[in-house]
Amino acid sequence: MLSENVFVIGAGETKYGELWEKSLRDLAVEAGLKAIENAGIYSRDVQILYGSNSLAGIINGQENIGSLIADFSGIASGNIPAVRIEASSASGGAAVREAYLAIKSGEYDVAVVGGVEKMTDIFGNEVLDMMSSLLDREWEAFFGATPAALAAISARKYMKDFNVKKEALAMMSVNDHANASLNPNSHFKNKITLDQALNATSVAEPLNLMDCSPVTDGASAIVLASESYLKKNKLNGMRILASAISQDYLALHSRDSIYTLDSTRIAADEAFKRSGLKREDMSFVELHDSYSIYGLMELEDLGFAKKGEADKLVEEDIKLGGRLPVNPSGGLKAKGNPLGATGVGQFVEAFLQLKGKADKRQVKDARYGLLQNMAGTGSTSVVHIVGGD
Amino acid sequence: MLSENVFVIGAGETKYGELWEKSLRDLAVEAGLKAIENAGIYSRDVQILYGSNSLAGIINGQENIGSLIADFSGIASGNIPAVRIEASSASGGAAVREAYLAIKSGEYDVAVVGGVEKMTDIFGNEVLDMMSSLLDREWEAFFGATPAALAAISARKYMKDFNVKKEALAMMSVNDHANASLNPNSHFKNKITLDQALNATSVAEPLNLMDCSPVTDGASAIVLASESYLKKNKLNGMRILASAISQDYLALHSRDSIYTLDSTRIAADEAFKRSGLKREDMSFVELHDSYSIYGLMELEDLGFAKKGEADKLVEEDIKLGGRLPVNPSGGLKAKGNPLGATGVGQFVEAFLQLKGKADKRQVKDARYGLLQNMAGTGSTSVVHIVGGD
Repeated sequence: MLSENVFVIGAGETKYGELWEKSLRDLAVEAGLKAIENAGIYSRDVQILYGSNSLAGIINGQENIGSLIADFSGIASGNIPAVRIEASSASGGAAVREAYLAIKSGEYDVAVVGGVEKMTDIFGNEVLDMMSSLLDREWEAFFGATPAALAAISARKYMKDFNVKKEALAMMSVNDHANASLNPNSHFKNKITLDQALNATSVAEPLNLMDCSPVTDGASAIVLASESYLKKNKLNGMRILASAISQDYLALHSRDSIYTLDSTRIAADEAFKRSGLKREDMSFVELHDSYSIYGLMELEDLGFAKKGEADKLVEEDIKLGGRLPVNPSGGLKAKGNPLGATGVGQFVEAFLQLKGKADKRQVKDARYGLLQNMAGTGSTSVVHIVGGD
Repeated sequence: MLSENVFVIGAGETKYGELWEKSLRDLAVEAGLKAIENAGIYSRDVQILYGSNSLAGIINGQENIGSLIADFSGIASGNIPAVRIEASSASGGAAVREAYLAIKSGEYDVAVVGGVEKMTDIFGNEVLDMMSSLLDREWEAFFGATPAALAAISARKYMKDFNVKKEALAMMSVNDHANASLNPNSHFKNKITLDQALNATSVAEPLNLMDCSPVTDGASAIVLASESYLKKNKLNGMRILASAISQDYLALHSRDSIYTLDSTRIAADEAFKRSGLKREDMSFVELHDSYSIYGLMELEDLGFAKKGEADKLVEEDIKLGGRLPVNPSGGLKAKGNPLGATGVGQFVEAFLQLKGKADKRQVKDARYGLLQNMAGTGSTSVVHIVGGD
């Protein structure tokens, strides 16, 4: 069976941060229109919209998010269909995958994926409960478990079993902040030292404030198109070389190992197999470090280090000029983590990197990138491999 | 470009109703496993799961619904990916369309779509606010508009402009209840008379209790497969002859006409064009009559009557033995309206009808069916045309 190759031809995003003066719809529209403008097409050329959002039902009392985005970005006037994809914090990657499948099916040539989250519309402690809607409500959240607490449990056992020092976790955050300081759209612009990362206020031992991604507002959007559309319109773009998704149990206690992300491992293996590329071909990785411990686990489950040995990479290799630059965007810790936008934001970064337009944080000779987006504690993982055209 | 034909090979659902003793996950799992059993395959044969749900974030404090369903139906153990599709009350139809595209893309041969809604986990007046999350929160719901109130506004203008009597609306509900009385899974089993339908307690003038679909718990699931999978495994099924989706403005006040459903009209035209079939070829129609007025508007916008003239069909034609049987399942008014499940339930009914297994409500010589599923007041519509194999 013949199938279309799929490309990203445009990308746009809002600033990430605490954007008190902007609403859910403001953010979605800003990112969407920037992406369409960046692609050099018109709104009327878009054939389908995939909205990615995790929590607007709870936070903003607004479901029917696809319709909302379509309406306020002006494409509903062209009766362009819109649906929302939800896979908690992996919504963005999952939405890109749906758009990818939609184009491969032959029914669409141009799709927009817009991810948005307006997280500061909720107060204080309610954030905790809201975030816990991503966990198993009846078997985890109901008993008081939060995403941070579960990450801490994994961290503690990981550190004990492999004799990994807290410094290794902290280095993930130091690296994120260093890169974010070069990204004009990032939530945080400040670099942090290893000392600062180690001595921040405790959140859930052994994790402190510098191990946890912040509560971020923001939106990111990309335009995808079929190869035949690119040829017809003499466009070029970033090719999606492989798209893979996999699944694990929802609750952490059901997993075989609490520091192995099976969904990430399987999706990564599948993505590499489909792309025909090797780990060492990757010019950079954007990974889902909602908590610093996940950064280490992911480097291992993506196949860049053996289990328990990712700490060997964090000193030098993951830096911008290192052997395997990780999160050139600033990652979830410092670029920020607006859940539904996070996975789409990884594509925005990859698009800039592969077009050589990442300015001060440009990875030299960037050719291939791996993007990993994950739901909650790892129930769903989406892995994409992208390359220049 | 070659593309796979897509079939439904199995269907299952829970009873619809006020199911106080069952949870969101209970319902999802029951429907999913029934569908898999009905298809005569094993859980491990499933390659992807699309969960359809509208409001569990708000009602049950549970997002990450795809993962939840995958986990508790046992397919997460096989690392089978799961994502949730949300398009408010059109989530079901939209999820079937995503599964259809996924199979057409060539990446999957077997997909399950499971729709579920647990609506009775919320109290009293909160139902109103929760339902209003499907509208434009900032421009409709915030000012006190509810789905029923907006349907009533459309009804009043429709009745005035076309001089349509309240009896025509009531007959939609009489028909739904008559059919539901023959459906063992329906929310309501009682027939109602025209008098009862006309004289029920007012909800939003001119609509009364018998014009409004109820608050229903329930789950429906279907198994979709590629033609090559059917051939290889010597299976047969119901063919999806056309799948179409279209969009309108989110808020009713933005539309060109408050009694014309552009999204339904455009999706229907596209579906008929793709299927190569005519309106008169349809053996039955399952339409989205969340409010009786929408039943009339939909018959028109689907092309079965001219605008303002659907009242001519409701006397005889839409009955089970009539020229165009409408909602043999009992429809949203009487089979029930568990939002995320509703659109998937239409496929369950069509599957039974086309397999000649609809028992007392069997449409004679059923050959082709049209299924229309709609979000809120019509922001998104999904239309499918299905046929025997």
